[in-house]
Amino acid sequence: MQLLKDRIRKDGKIRGTEVLKVDSFLNHQMDVTLFDAIGAEFKRRFSDCEINKILTIEASGIGIACLAARHFSCPVVFAKKSQSSNISDEVFCAKVESFTHGKVYNVIVSKEYLHPGDKVLLIDDFLANGEALRGLASIVSQSGADLIGAGIVIEKAFQPGGDSLRASGMRVESLARVAAMSETDGITFVD
Amino acid sequence: MQLLKDRIRKDGKIRGTEVLKVDSFLNHQMDVTLFDAIGAEFKRRFSDCEINKILTIEASGIGIACLAARHFSCPVVFAKKSQSSNISDEVFCAKVESFTHGKVYNVIVSKEYLHPGDKVLLIDDFLANGEALRGLASIVSQSGADLIGAGIVIEKAFQPGGDSLRASGMRVESLARVAAMSETDGITFVD
Repeated sequence: MQLLKDRIRKDGKIRGTEVLKVDSFLNHQMDVTLFDAIGAEFKRRFSDCEINKILTIEASGIGIACLAARHFSCPVVFAKKSQSSNISDEVFCAKVESFTHGKVYNVIVSKEYLHPGDKVLLIDDFLANGEALRGLASIVSQSGADLIGAGIVIEKAFQPGGDSLRASGMRVESLARVAAMSETDGITFVD
Repeated sequence: MQLLKDRIRKDGKIRGTEVLKVDSFLNHQMDVTLFDAIGAEFKRRFSDCEINKILTIEASGIGIACLAARHFSCPVVFAKKSQSSNISDEVFCAKVESFTHGKVYNVIVSKEYLHPGDKVLLIDDFLANGEALRGLASIVSQSGADLIGAGIVIEKAFQPGGDSLRASGMRVESLARVAAMSETDGITFVD
């Protein structure tokens, strides 16, 4: 998605070879006009699918998922992060390890909001190691709903998550795939 | 806002006299068609103001704020909750006490995204004791930006936050103001 790649080049800040800060438009300050275009692009890519629910994870996936949901005319469910080990039997739960924050947390979704027959699209801002997507996919599987695929804004294609999830059979559509980054040479996208 | 009140009566679940669960459409599963109507109503109520930034707080304010921002043609900034006592000098920070969760946390916003001259609308899903709004207002004040007011989806008008904030001079527009609730008698709105 050229609009997105241009914006990443213009406003993204590279730290070392692994950290890409997009705080100014994606995950702290949020450019909803861009989010609307991102939502339209997800809809275009998944136009062959009858998606009736979008599942994302708090916090930075929520805005993108909500703008995308307008294009799919469906509700959004967001998985909540919980550090409590006391998990109610009224929720689906999966463990997710965050490499960024160096901890393991539970992601939970109420059993009321995912059911067999639902056709679910996962949406998130970043894909790196794929832990969050794996957790969300586990929750969809527990619910008996169908996982249609995942829409990702920025994939760090130099990290193993995307390839590993695709190899496992998940359809992953990433709008910008970063092949490599450096503070001196800038950013290279796949393709 | 009648559409919202009708939805609360239809799908809200009352627990005791203080807890109103609106998980099915507002803060876990999210009805973005309703959010779009809520956003339009906030725009109508603040149509006399030149708002150029919406400030909300993670996680459940984000979806509402993003749909509202389309109507204001402005970006959203979401304040992040942090339990760390180690606060960078690159952020504005305010302490917020959560009565629901029984703890105190810091809310932080990068100094890059709020400036003198900004005209800021606060948006959140619930107003009860007003702690979150007070924290966001403190952050706006620290930044030197102008606080235009607050748009709230559901105000628990039987709790002191709304009256106290209005008495302090804040313009608070709540789309549904709950006067009283009980499991037997249901919900009564102000007016």
